[in-house]
Parts: sequence; structure tokens; C-alpha cells
Amino acid sequence: MKLVSYTHKGRSSWGAAAGTGLVDMGKRLPDLPSLRSALAANAQGRIAAALKGATADLPLSEARLLPPIPDPEKVICFGNNYREHVLEAGGKIPEHPSLFVRLANTLVGHEAPIIVPRVSSDLDYETELALVIGKPGRHIPAAKAFDHIAGYTCFHDASVRDFQLLHSLDAGKNFIGTGPCGPWIVTRDEIPNPGNLTLRTRLNGTLLQNGNTSELIFDIPAMIAYISSFTPLAPGDIIATGTPSGVGFTRKPPIWLKPGDVVEIEVEGIGILRNPVRAEGDEG
Amino acid sequence: MKLVSYTHKGRSSWGAAAGTGLVDMGKRLPDLPSLRSALAANAQGRIAAALKGATADLPLSEARLLPPIPDPEKVICFGNNYREHVLEAGGKIPEHPSLFVRLANTLVGHEAPIIVPRVSSDLDYETELALVIGKPGRHIPAAKAFDHIAGYTCFHDASVRDFQLLHSLDAGKNFIGTGPCGPWIVTRDEIPNPGNLTLRTRLNGTLLQNGNTSELIFDIPAMIAYISSFTPLAPGDIIATGTPSGVGFTRKPPIWLKPGDVVEIEVEGIGILRNPVRAEGDEG
Repeated sequence: MKLVSYTHKGRSSWGAAAGTGLVDMGKRLPDLPSLRSALAANAQGRIAAALKGATADLPLSEARLLPPIPDPEKVICFGNNYREHVLEAGGKIPEHPSLFVRLANTLVGHEAPIIVPRVSSDLDYETELALVIGKPGRHIPAAKAFDHIAGYTCFHDASVRDFQLLHSLDAGKNFIGTGPCGPWIVTRDEIPNPGNLTLRTRLNGTLLQNGNTSELIFDIPAMIAYISSFTPLAPGDIIATGTPSGVGFTRKPPIWLKPGDVVEIEVEGIGILRNPVRAEGDEG
Repeated sequence: MKLVSYTHKGRSSWGAAAGTGLVDMGKRLPDLPSLRSALAANAQGRIAAALKGATADLPLSEARLLPPIPDPEKVICFGNNYREHVLEAGGKIPEHPSLFVRLANTLVGHEAPIIVPRVSSDLDYETELALVIGKPGRHIPAAKAFDHIAGYTCFHDASVRDFQLLHSLDAGKNFIGTGPCGPWIVTRDEIPNPGNLTLRTRLNGTLLQNGNTSELIFDIPAMIAYISSFTPLAPGDIIATGTPSGVGFTRKPPIWLKPGDVVEIEVEGIGILRNPVRAEGDEG
């Protein structure tokens, strides 16, 4: 299933994509007011039952898609997790996982603008596979990690490089309007091997990243085990798994996202997350 | 005023300390269900009016104090912000501010245990002044920064040093039970010069840090202006301003927090935040 959070005619809800239509689950399962609450209730069976034979409530194209989980408790992002990317950035292959925290207020949905901030023009793209947690847990063994994943989504870890590299990692990764996520969560049952998915970035149609999750240094079970060694994972938590090579700042000359650009990031088996780029103050 | 969040006999509320007593503001101002909502409503005048002539509802000592804002939207911590601390840690005096994000689930209140995790014993203390945001804002000029501060509290940025230094900063700063905050928020009017406050750490009674906020590299207005250049500040946001010299990991031999220890951190004009140290699984 493809699960979304959205607004339509001023009303917020969540639902399931069915072809070109959208089935409103917030209406059908009123005890589950959000997709996050549905994941917490492990409600995939109920969603599937409600979806069976349902008529779409609206065309998917008429909904404004939000980040699939608009208000996650945590957004944890791995860095330096693809060998070629580490090397292009001048780093060393890490012995331990490396991660950072994103504020939930950086998230935006499909088709919402990525913002070039007032204080920097060094805005770069990063295409990533993200995991969405369903079952909570602490000290999760790698062998049981997949039990805790509800599904997968695309994550665009857009990065303000001068702040990231000259000030601090977390400043560069926490600008408003730099965390596109979506368009939807594809449930885990539909992606049997998330360790072999192509990742692609297209900027105004030009292919700039073309990697595969098979190149991850720390794989999905290792990442889940690692995070849960220091914090409890909760339903709706987003874990972005790192980006492959091909980012803009390592190119000569560097490529930066500019107002007017359109960026598409694609994760095989999930889909395309597309966002226009706008200047701060001109978000439209 | 000293404003607290607390539980008492299974009920959560917030209130104001009055001498040895606690006045329940959640009861008196029922339209403001939390201290965060009171800050968002700029309700200091209403709190003061309700406090005038009020009889305490319970002895302060009978309340279990929570972090003053148990559920902040953001906890942003500055690092490398005291010259002597930067030098003791082998760093260079920074040209730009350096910060990281803490997850709200790391926060604990006064007298709640700090947790030595299962996966590390390198747990270190750091005493800090924290700012609590009242008025929201973006691109706040330094000259107007204090208008956005509701008050001040003590922050203990306990740090798992091997994860912080060998893995990634945010992993070492985001272990459960490593973010004591409190005991209360002292409102801004009671601390006319937060740029000249003594900070002290005592471990089992022994003085280990003894600094002053006058030594800050980036001062309070600069920190507020910097954060608000990339993200909007919201009521209840916590900004920890960095720690002075004297931390445990730079000593020979290093000093680590161990189960059975008691740490007191003191910020002049605010008070003492005291926490016992417990092993994970033995939080009591």
C-alpha cells in the first residue's frame, strides 16, 4: 500500500493511494486521526480491509501531499554511509555509524518548495531512502530490525553546505524547507529487498545521482540496532539512510540549487519526490 | 517568578514556586494546560496576578519536578562556546557558532536519574545556562534578542564521550536520561544580566567546574540571532549555551559519572539542579 498524509479543501487527513485515486482513511477509520497513529496501532490490516473495494474519495492529483508523517518524534539521518560519497567529499570510510538529528519543522511534502535561505546560496541535494518505524523498541537486535519498520519513503536531505562544513553539521541540516519527504510511505510488504534499490536525482531533468542501497556501508538492520542502543524508537520515526555519490558541492564547479529549479529524487519501488526550489520570502 | 512543571499524586500540572510552597497554576488558569502554553500566551502577567496572595497548594518538596518544558519543539545546544573549554578539549577557537540538536526525549527533571547507558561508561558532565523562548521569531536581530526570552534554567548536557568523539556528536548527545533541565524557569525580569552568572558543577560534593557566562564566545543575543537565521524560534524552545572548562574527559585520569554518584549543577540566580546517577535498567 501507498499511505499518504494530505490536505484537501482546507481539511487535513490521511489515506491510501489507489491508482490515480485517493481513499480517505481519516474518514473511514475515525479512531485513527493520523497516519502516525495508524502506524502506532499497527493498523495495516484494517487499512487494507477498508481499501478493499473502496471507491476513491478524490483524485490523488487534487490532494496537497504533506510529509507522510508531518510531526515525527524523531528524524534521524545517517551521514557518510556510501563509500563513493565519503570519498568524493574527501572523508575516510567510517568505522562507526555517523548520524545527526533533523528538526521536524524542516520537513516538506511532495511538490512543496525547497527554500534557498536568505543567509546562504550553497544549497545542495541528497537523495536518500528513509525508513519509517512502526513497532517501537529499544536495543533492537539487527536480526529483528525489519519487524520494526512499517515502510519506506523518499527523503531529500537538502543541505546548506557552508553552514554544514564551516559552522556545524546540524546548522547546515536544519534550515526550514530543506527536508522533502514522500510522496508516500510504501508498506514494508511491497519492498522485499530494500537493500537493493536504485536511487536517482534529477535536477531540471539532468541525472546527477545514480546509486543503489546495496552500496550502504552500515545496512538497514545495523542502523536500526545502532539508534536503538541510545534511544527508544517510536512509531512514525523517520530514519534517513544516507546519500550516494554525485552531490553538488564536490563538483567543479559546484552545483547549487537555485530558485526556479525543479529537483526530482527517485527511489526504486517507492516513486518520485518532486520539489520546486524557491527563494526565502518567495515560497508562493 | 520560578515556574515549574510537575506531577503530584499522579496528576501533571504546572505552577509557581513561592518560598517552600508550590502554587498550582494549571488549576488556577485552566485555559493554559501547560507551562509551554502559558509562555506561548505571554501569560506572565496573569501568573503574577494569580500568585499574588495565593496560598500554596502543596509543599514544593512533595512535587516531582519535570523538565520545566517537558515537550519542547526544539532543544538546541551550543558547543565550543567557552574559550578555556575549547582549549582543554584540544580545539581551536571557532569563527562561527557551533550547535547540535537534542531530542526532547533526553530531558529529565530535577532529582530524576541520569542514566549510564549499557553500551558505554564514558558519561561526562557539562553545566550550562539555558534560555527558554517566550516570543516566537525568525531573523531576530541581536538587539531585540532578549525580547524573545521568557526566562532561564539550568541545563546539564551530559555527554557519552566515546560515541560523541569516535562516532558522531549527535549520537553522544542523545542518549536517554542525559539531559537534566530545571529545577524551574526563572523569568527574565529576575535576571537582569545573564551575561555574568557563575556556573558550578559539584560531583559528590567536589567542585569540578567553576565558570561564568561572561566567558561566552558567542553571547546570548548572538546565539538567538544565529539560530533564528535558519529556523523559527517557538515558545518553549530550549537553547543550551555551552559549558565552561573543567569537564571530566579532559582530566588525567578522566572522571566519568558512575552509578551512585550525585551531580549538582548550579547557575547563579537560578539555583541547583541535582540528579543521582543510575545504571541503565536500574533507574529506580
